[in-house]
Amino acid sequence: MTITKSERSTVAFHDLQAVKKLRQLAEAPFDLTKPGNLTPERIGKYTAEACGYKLFYGTERIDDQVMSTLQELAEEADVISKMQKMQSGEVLNFIDGYESEERMVLHTATRDFFNNPIASKEAIELARKEVDKLDRFMIKVDEDDHFTDMIMIGIGGSYLGPEANYLALEHLHKENRRVHFVNNIDPDNLAEVLRKVNLETCLIALVSKTGTTLETMTNAESIRAKIEEAGLKPRKHVITVTMQGSPLDDKRKYLECFYMWDWIGGRYSSTCMVGGVPLAFALGFENFWEFLRGAHAMDKIALNKDIHRNLPLMAALLGIWNRNFLHSPTLAVIPYSNGLRRFPAHIQQLDMESNGKHITQKGKRVDFETGPIIWGEPGSSAQHSFYQLIHQGTNIIPLEFIGYKLCQSKQDMDYDGTTSQEKLLSNLFAQAIALATGEQSDNPNKTFEGNRPSHLLMGRQLTPSSLGALLSFFEHKVAFQGFCWGINSFDQEGVQLGKVLAKKIINLFANKHGLHRGGDYPLGEAFLKQIQTL
Amino acid sequence: MTITKSERSTVAFHDLQAVKKLRQLAEAPFDLTKPGNLTPERIGKYTAEACGYKLFYGTERIDDQVMSTLQELAEEADVISKMQKMQSGEVLNFIDGYESEERMVLHTATRDFFNNPIASKEAIELARKEVDKLDRFMIKVDEDDHFTDMIMIGIGGSYLGPEANYLALEHLHKENRRVHFVNNIDPDNLAEVLRKVNLETCLIALVSKTGTTLETMTNAESIRAKIEEAGLKPRKHVITVTMQGSPLDDKRKYLECFYMWDWIGGRYSSTCMVGGVPLAFALGFENFWEFLRGAHAMDKIALNKDIHRNLPLMAALLGIWNRNFLHSPTLAVIPYSNGLRRFPAHIQQLDMESNGKHITQKGKRVDFETGPIIWGEPGSSAQHSFYQLIHQGTNIIPLEFIGYKLCQSKQDMDYDGTTSQEKLLSNLFAQAIALATGEQSDNPNKTFEGNRPSHLLMGRQLTPSSLGALLSFFEHKVAFQGFCWGINSFDQEGVQLGKVLAKKIINLFANKHGLHRGGDYPLGEAFLKQIQTL
Repeated sequence: MTITKSERSTVAFHDLQAVKKLRQLAEAPFDLTKPGNLTPERIGKYTAEACGYKLFYGTERIDDQVMSTLQELAEEADVISKMQKMQSGEVLNFIDGYESEERMVLHTATRDFFNNPIASKEAIELARKEVDKLDRFMIKVDEDDHFTDMIMIGIGGSYLGPEANYLALEHLHKENRRVHFVNNIDPDNLAEVLRKVNLETCLIALVSKTGTTLETMTNAESIRAKIEEAGLKPRKHVITVTMQGSPLDDKRKYLECFYMWDWIGGRYSSTCMVGGVPLAFALGFENFWEFLRGAHAMDKIALNKDIHRNLPLMAALLGIWNRNFLHSPTLAVIPYSNGLRRFPAHIQQLDMESNGKHITQKGKRVDFETGPIIWGEPGSSAQHSFYQLIHQGTNIIPLEFIGYKLCQSKQDMDYDGTTSQEKLLSNLFAQAIALATGEQSDNPNKTFEGNRPSHLLMGRQLTPSSLGALLSFFEHKVAFQGFCWGINSFDQEGVQLGKVLAKKIINLFANKHGLHRGGDYPLGEAFLKQIQTL
Repeated sequence: MTITKSERSTVAFHDLQAVKKLRQLAEAPFDLTKPGNLTPERIGKYTAEACGYKLFYGTERIDDQVMSTLQELAEEADVISKMQKMQSGEVLNFIDGYESEERMVLHTATRDFFNNPIASKEAIELARKEVDKLDRFMIKVDEDDHFTDMIMIGIGGSYLGPEANYLALEHLHKENRRVHFVNNIDPDNLAEVLRKVNLETCLIALVSKTGTTLETMTNAESIRAKIEEAGLKPRKHVITVTMQGSPLDDKRKYLECFYMWDWIGGRYSSTCMVGGVPLAFALGFENFWEFLRGAHAMDKIALNKDIHRNLPLMAALLGIWNRNFLHSPTLAVIPYSNGLRRFPAHIQQLDMESNGKHITQKGKRVDFETGPIIWGEPGSSAQHSFYQLIHQGTNIIPLEFIGYKLCQSKQDMDYDGTTSQEKLLSNLFAQAIALATGEQSDNPNKTFEGNRPSHLLMGRQLTPSSLGALLSFFEHKVAFQGFCWGINSFDQEGVQLGKVLAKKIINLFANKHGLHRGGDYPLGEAFLKQIQTL
């Protein structure tokens, strides 16, 4: 494939004119608590809309001047041109002047099937070939009518996105079709799943880009043994998703092998076969296809220069305002949607692994804050958990709410004059208002200081297509923030040291079994010695 | 019951001598990255032990002087005497000079059955009566052999602890006994659970201390309708856990009513009937009893003045060092244990709702940081998710690891010379070391700055008893921090404003259904208007 290296000159974040202006504006941010400041007009005015979603950001601490300066920041940092380069396949995953991955970032190609393709014909063809293979494979699975359960074995990006998306759409599952996830090397994880299934009717999906991930390969080996113990043939039960030529690419050993490429990062792999295999198995290929369609629609929106149309860019800039100028270390992602109960865990990886970086793409130590700490649980439940601290704690926590006008279920009930969905939405809107305005009281313990910023991304209903758009929204939000900061959002060198040291300690355990792996490692031995007496 | 008001004079946090000393010591905290500083001897030396757990804190940025000053802090703040007062039933839940709850804090009485009771005889008798009632009820359930599934309907403290504990011990479940949790008012939550069960063999547990919680009462009403639709009698399927005299205390309507009291906060209710009902149903009463025994053992440890024995106090002080002196806004709780996969969500509530406070018990705005933002996911999975940011991001994130020498499962497999459990532990120890020491490199992208502090609580195996001890460890850690800070860790006024505003918006929805609830609320109407076009 022809690869174009991206133009590498970028102005450092702190040298952007807009950053200097924003620093001044942040000295007196909009006061949401001042009577008359948060009005119905403001809520209507600060609303952006695209792809069936509305973004309400009137409860952020922004005004017209902040918003126009954020738009300037986006222009100065040239983020739309970078997004175009990303989607068209230039090499954006690099560190200038140092050994680095030097890869394209082309997860958008895995759904660039609908209109006005921007990725290279070659990438789209590769991606499409796998989609068609998946379609054919699932037709066969349906015809054979043998498999009821899928056990998907993968970790990190080969687990969090697929699980979050599967749970979001689980209500659409075909009769007698379920997916279970084994991700942890903790043997209790596999045991937990094995208690729930009959291996005889299980399709196993092993997912590892390199085919060498310690946790995944260990669990793969454990389940192979279980399959054989049960008198079954692994060859008839196991499919893989991996890169061509990896140890998992072997049609003699596996029922089918689906491919991904070095231009898809694990955390960006939800729309390639990593996410496709479980969704198509459980919900049918058509639902996976609609999921891709939704993601693609948001990819197109991400190319729009106007932040009032480009929702992911808008959210990225609001995040930068809260992170770099109002100095919030964390961001809570709170879906008011039961289907999205594991979605924050996926966004946590997507964002923190992408933007938790301490050097720029030029290899310089940053002198500003990069990616925030992302965490969250579903509302309204979370109101009864950690909202106490959000309302009255000593840290300001910006919130990113997600909500839907309609529930997925047809079972909503009217009780005391309103439906449960209406009560859920009432809680959602009430929180955005309460956090913003706060409330004074003569009792200091009943005082709410307010000025807790939030915005709300609101859709009509959580469907395969709107889920795809939501996923793409977050993928591009993260990329836009990385473009503004001038960091490489697409590698993860920070996970390497732990892997190296873990291998040393694994060798110590192996030595104890008499295997003579060598590797004197006193710090590791200190821990092993301490646990002997437990 | 005789109630003694606690002595209310406490020295403000910032006026403690130890706090002044610690501020000086924090100017040059122990450097874990310096060669020769993190040694095997250090790991052995900074180890405390109690109740079958070891706490390894050599990878924190502390030295002997810091530790002795933290011990001084505990003494100056008189935390052991406060813990004694708490466990013996003095009123600690108050704000001096203002209207407040004025309640005892006696969750420890719900397990004070084993030796040297400290709670009042009256409280212990009340608690014991419910335990015995539970035992009898479950004997009857076993004899009837009718119920296979329990649906527990509760939110916040009536959900997070019970779910976390149930999942931690799920492998011990009786044959054909499962518990499902409905917490969210989102109707998709109830629908999701109803897809999995047969109502005919379902025991429903409604859990609400006041019997008025919006979410719980709405879901209770929905499920009552479902039961009747199925031609079943609610009276034969529904039990409740509530305060005496609440709307849920009605033996004519419910099969059984279990009691709790105003001296048990929701987030501290795991060892009363709130946690007892699901555990005893699924795992048998004996396992619940062992859980209580473990919690009680740690309660006793929490009365010890020596921080090297008193593990929860040790962890509390290490947390204060990281929070108030090294200024970390968050704390990641990472169990390397599949059973504990939802335990961080419980600790998140327990800690953030308890200590996310902005005034002292004297009603003064604090001028220091209180409770941190708590978040976490299980390791080793998390290594493939957000550890990138922990190693190389721009915020320092202290970590609280939890691990066990043995897995729960009997299915661990040897692969490539070591078991999965050994690989899991290798990863755990490796992370503590890597985060502490970091690593230099000529490639700035492969540089790890280190000095990321962590400690590790390590047990032999996750069992009912060790889970009880773990739960109590965190309950007391949170209480000790609150005692040091001089805040009231036992109320939650910060959740009230949202509830009030939500009701206003619910009225707007009701008005749209023609119910004339009145209540002009323009800010709420602004949101309702905006979603019309979605």
